[in-house]
Amino acid sequence: MQHENRLFPVRVSLLRQNFSSFKIDNLIILDMNNIRYLTGFTGSEGVLLISKNKVILLVDGRYTAQAKIETINAKVIEYKDKIEGIGQVINDFGLKNIGFEAGLISVQMYNKLSEKFPKEIFRPLGDELKLLRVFKDESEISLMREAADISSSAINSLVSDIRSGCTEKELALQLEIKARRAGADQLAFEAIIASGENSALPHAKPSGRKIRKGDFIVIDFGVKYKGYCSDETCTFAFGKLTAEQKNAYQIVKDAHDRAIDTVRANIPASEIDRCVRRIFGERYEHYFSHGTGHGVGLEVHEAPRLAPNSPDVLEAQMVVTIEPGLYIPGRWGIRIEDMVLVKENSCEKLSKMDKELIIIE
Amino acid sequence: MQHENRLFPVRVSLLRQNFSSFKIDNLIILDMNNIRYLTGFTGSEGVLLISKNKVILLVDGRYTAQAKIETINAKVIEYKDKIEGIGQVINDFGLKNIGFEAGLISVQMYNKLSEKFPKEIFRPLGDELKLLRVFKDESEISLMREAADISSSAINSLVSDIRSGCTEKELALQLEIKARRAGADQLAFEAIIASGENSALPHAKPSGRKIRKGDFIVIDFGVKYKGYCSDETCTFAFGKLTAEQKNAYQIVKDAHDRAIDTVRANIPASEIDRCVRRIFGERYEHYFSHGTGHGVGLEVHEAPRLAPNSPDVLEAQMVVTIEPGLYIPGRWGIRIEDMVLVKENSCEKLSKMDKELIIIE
Repeated sequence: MQHENRLFPVRVSLLRQNFSSFKIDNLIILDMNNIRYLTGFTGSEGVLLISKNKVILLVDGRYTAQAKIETINAKVIEYKDKIEGIGQVINDFGLKNIGFEAGLISVQMYNKLSEKFPKEIFRPLGDELKLLRVFKDESEISLMREAADISSSAINSLVSDIRSGCTEKELALQLEIKARRAGADQLAFEAIIASGENSALPHAKPSGRKIRKGDFIVIDFGVKYKGYCSDETCTFAFGKLTAEQKNAYQIVKDAHDRAIDTVRANIPASEIDRCVRRIFGERYEHYFSHGTGHGVGLEVHEAPRLAPNSPDVLEAQMVVTIEPGLYIPGRWGIRIEDMVLVKENSCEKLSKMDKELIIIE
Repeated sequence: MQHENRLFPVRVSLLRQNFSSFKIDNLIILDMNNIRYLTGFTGSEGVLLISKNKVILLVDGRYTAQAKIETINAKVIEYKDKIEGIGQVINDFGLKNIGFEAGLISVQMYNKLSEKFPKEIFRPLGDELKLLRVFKDESEISLMREAADISSSAINSLVSDIRSGCTEKELALQLEIKARRAGADQLAFEAIIASGENSALPHAKPSGRKIRKGDFIVIDFGVKYKGYCSDETCTFAFGKLTAEQKNAYQIVKDAHDRAIDTVRANIPASEIDRCVRRIFGERYEHYFSHGTGHGVGLEVHEAPRLAPNSPDVLEAQMVVTIEPGLYIPGRWGIRIEDMVLVKENSCEKLSKMDKELIIIE
């Protein structure tokens, strides 16, 4: 615990070192995952104010006791009204030149603050904060390994439960039970179990549809373990596939494998995406309707973004997904996804399921 | 289905009738629950544009097929980049005087749009849209009844599973399994099972703590059924309570019952909150660290707000929670919550568990 507690002051110090390049003296943080990352507070609402020598966590009455228990590096102050709470702290400490997360603060909140204070004291930050959580430290990687182990084991154990007539919903529930019994705190996102024609919808919700012969079953699953997410997708065949389906699976698998072989530090994220699209080629590329991957951490989708127009560059200590897929509308879909840790000259798979085609008879 | 499908065009028409009082000709909607309410689209990302004669749903490639299946009253357009997609529609149709949800659009997004278009064409809306989903129609109430039935039955059935040594986490999992087997699509929020000293934290997460004699067990639970939420809290006694605990339970129960007796159309929401605080009195009020309730619908927390400073007035067809609680830091806590439908001269409990003290031996 001692070790864990030291993390938060260190993270705040590292962030403060960027204040001059961000051209700010103070920072208002609203993103609850950023707040958790910097203080350990796990509540669902609050505001963090970081000045050059203070860390103040503003919470409402629901969270006062919890915030005091969870944080060691922040002074906890209770507010009745969020905007007034922020205003009070800005006044009390005479804060000026205050950065804020422009992608998160609403126009409404900004306008209300601007009624109380001159607009010039606020400075919107955009991409500056994108890197805050992008490099995972050892404590984070170890939690993500745990999360990945839990979800892989749950998927692996589900294989033997899949029978003709099972509904997607019941399988989703079984999967969650396995993961939670194995220590998952909650799911990282609602599990996708999409069979037959439903598998052609990349983000289908588990339905009452019954599994039947000839189905692809796409299982996209991740858990949260002590705040950190996993994300993995397997596509199983239930009974015999057509030659076209088998061929398509192999193409997605090739694209997935090649992309993973290509991942290393200093490569543009868009290059990994291009690598997938090159393998899909003209015949298939337009059936691949999303990006190749995304960062994972306290959020299941965070920076960087692996997509055609992404400006991001992969670096060591990032954790990203590689998830090519093909979706033939109204018929079937395939997605294969691993979560990987970027290293200097390669990457390490954190997801544990083997991605060779599994045919469930 | 025919009936359900007619709901969406009707809701859009009702909203359009307010355009002149909002002083807008067009409206950009980002809130995914608002988008679901107006079109039936259940995806996690998208933008809805409503003009005087068009309804356009912008989605990314993940959701194109799904959006076309789910919506009948919106033209679906796929975007690669959200801001550019919005910009394209504004350009193509020459839209001006466009309202947007000021509490939801980020300063970043607004600034990017303002680079492409004169700021004057955008008009921030705040409280104007608060009422959009506040009055529940019969189809919504019937889904919320289902949701409330599922969560009440799950809590009721959990009572016989509670034994000395059970962990909060395992009980939370049991509760979820029961609810999902009974038809819940997912939970409305992470279940709270808080025992002993944990019950003093209004928003505790289920932990590995084992239930033991003398505990209060606070169970705050809700499910989603076809998008609609339920929300109910029971506090059980495990074994014998002290006289102080019994007395406190009775006070919370009295406050809860009195508040419910007071709920009816045209009463200020703050009056319901005051009714609770009057019963708690000087001795207990400072142990009640949150508001008395909130609206429930597609979101588990939505308008109106039942709190000391709330400007809201209760009206027939609103669904709200009544949830007084007392939290003695480090020792124990109690919360009793029902979800009720406001009627002209009274309210109807949608939550089904009886709130007399249940002592589990």
